[in-house]
Amino acid sequence: MTSDALTDLQVAHEMADAARAAILPFFRRADLSTENKLTEGFDPVTVADRAAEQAMRAVLATHRPADGIWGEEYGQSAGVSGRQWVLDPIDGTRGFISGTPTWGVLIALSTEAGPILGVVDQPYIGERFVGSAEGAEMTGPHGSVTLKTRDTQKLEEAVLFTTFPEVGTPEDRAGFEAVASQVRLTRYGMDCYAYALLSAGQVDLIIEAGLNAYDIQGPIGVIQAAGGIVTDWQGRPAHNGGRVLAAANADIHAAALDILKSK
Amino acid sequence: MTSDALTDLQVAHEMADAARAAILPFFRRADLSTENKLTEGFDPVTVADRAAEQAMRAVLATHRPADGIWGEEYGQSAGVSGRQWVLDPIDGTRGFISGTPTWGVLIALSTEAGPILGVVDQPYIGERFVGSAEGAEMTGPHGSVTLKTRDTQKLEEAVLFTTFPEVGTPEDRAGFEAVASQVRLTRYGMDCYAYALLSAGQVDLIIEAGLNAYDIQGPIGVIQAAGGIVTDWQGRPAHNGGRVLAAANADIHAAALDILKSK
Repeated sequence: MTSDALTDLQVAHEMADAARAAILPFFRRADLSTENKLTEGFDPVTVADRAAEQAMRAVLATHRPADGIWGEEYGQSAGVSGRQWVLDPIDGTRGFISGTPTWGVLIALSTEAGPILGVVDQPYIGERFVGSAEGAEMTGPHGSVTLKTRDTQKLEEAVLFTTFPEVGTPEDRAGFEAVASQVRLTRYGMDCYAYALLSAGQVDLIIEAGLNAYDIQGPIGVIQAAGGIVTDWQGRPAHNGGRVLAAANADIHAAALDILKSK
Repeated sequence: MTSDALTDLQVAHEMADAARAAILPFFRRADLSTENKLTEGFDPVTVADRAAEQAMRAVLATHRPADGIWGEEYGQSAGVSGRQWVLDPIDGTRGFISGTPTWGVLIALSTEAGPILGVVDQPYIGERFVGSAEGAEMTGPHGSVTLKTRDTQKLEEAVLFTTFPEVGTPEDRAGFEAVASQVRLTRYGMDCYAYALLSAGQVDLIIEAGLNAYDIQGPIGVIQAAGGIVTDWQGRPAHNGGRVLAAANADIHAAALDILKSK
């Protein structure tokens, strides 16, 4: 690590600011779908994705040159610090192209053991969910709040989210539905925003499958700092992606895991 | 109609402002779920719903005493003008209690023939979608834009939304799935926000069932002013609720209707 004047948290905020500025000009731009028809191969999401990852990499080049980087668009670049920044410039591509404010910029700072800092940023709403050793906080259009997951104990009281009803493979779907059949309310379509809501004490469980490491490391950093738990469907670390169970607390995590483990 | 100095559009904005102020203190309030456990029967959504409808009715009492009102919470009150304000103070209750910014305040001004003015307001994001004879416009956190539905012609290029995968009855679901199987992308979970996105040219089709008149009249007012079409699954007026098909233009409406008519 260099002796940069900025803290890791300040670097993360600067990266998220840069990504916002890079992406927002492309979101809901009316002419994009037209251009897309006329010049085959022009993909507004990819353009915005790349611009945002480049902007975040530029911040790291200035302030954290010794750290490694793993970004969805430009892959892995090795560092010498033992630390890695894991970036998904636009998580929730289908939400993005549909205009829903459910996509996000995901940033994690991780060691081999997993994320030690996480950011989920929703540029359009102007909401940023951040977790680190210093705590967990959301800043948004109506001010700042401390993030704290809630203490729901029983599945029958729980609110469960996933993005697509099919979840993944038929086997993945069966696991999800076994839990869904026991909860109070199941909702869909929130992309990474569901993880932000879990950290904010609004949602109890998220079950997904087929995730990449960069889809989940940012959310893990936020949720853990807010008191939640993220594992795979066997209760092991989830920062390499795959099947993911995010839970508001140990009790509701155990209740869902009991069902998923047998799937 | 009284000789009030405000236009209908100004009255609608004042109502939406009043509803925002009434609802936002209840959204994502961390202590609400706790209170709900302790004092059975306290329902934060109902409290916010009622406060918002009362606030909107107070605006109408001042500025449009001759008009009728039909609100979800307080029912119908007759007017003498032949016009009626149709109000859903919080459309998307399940989204509201899950913290998603997909619920909305719905306002319509209608005659027997249907809505002549509509509002879909999302107080948390600070977005307001308005349609009337004067045009269709969204004001939001990044400024104002004219609303215009898009010209997607074919189902295979269309983006389709509904809120719950089950849609309604098994028969309703089958109708939805017959269309879903032909489109490019299907998304869930957006409540009334999906109608706002259709008016903004982001979404091509919305198919829902079991709606009440106050769930759909506000969206109809916005969508029609933005160039879209809302009917039931037989192509008849949809302002009394039931099965609803909202479409970005006449061609994509006809393509979806062809499938739904046979269901």
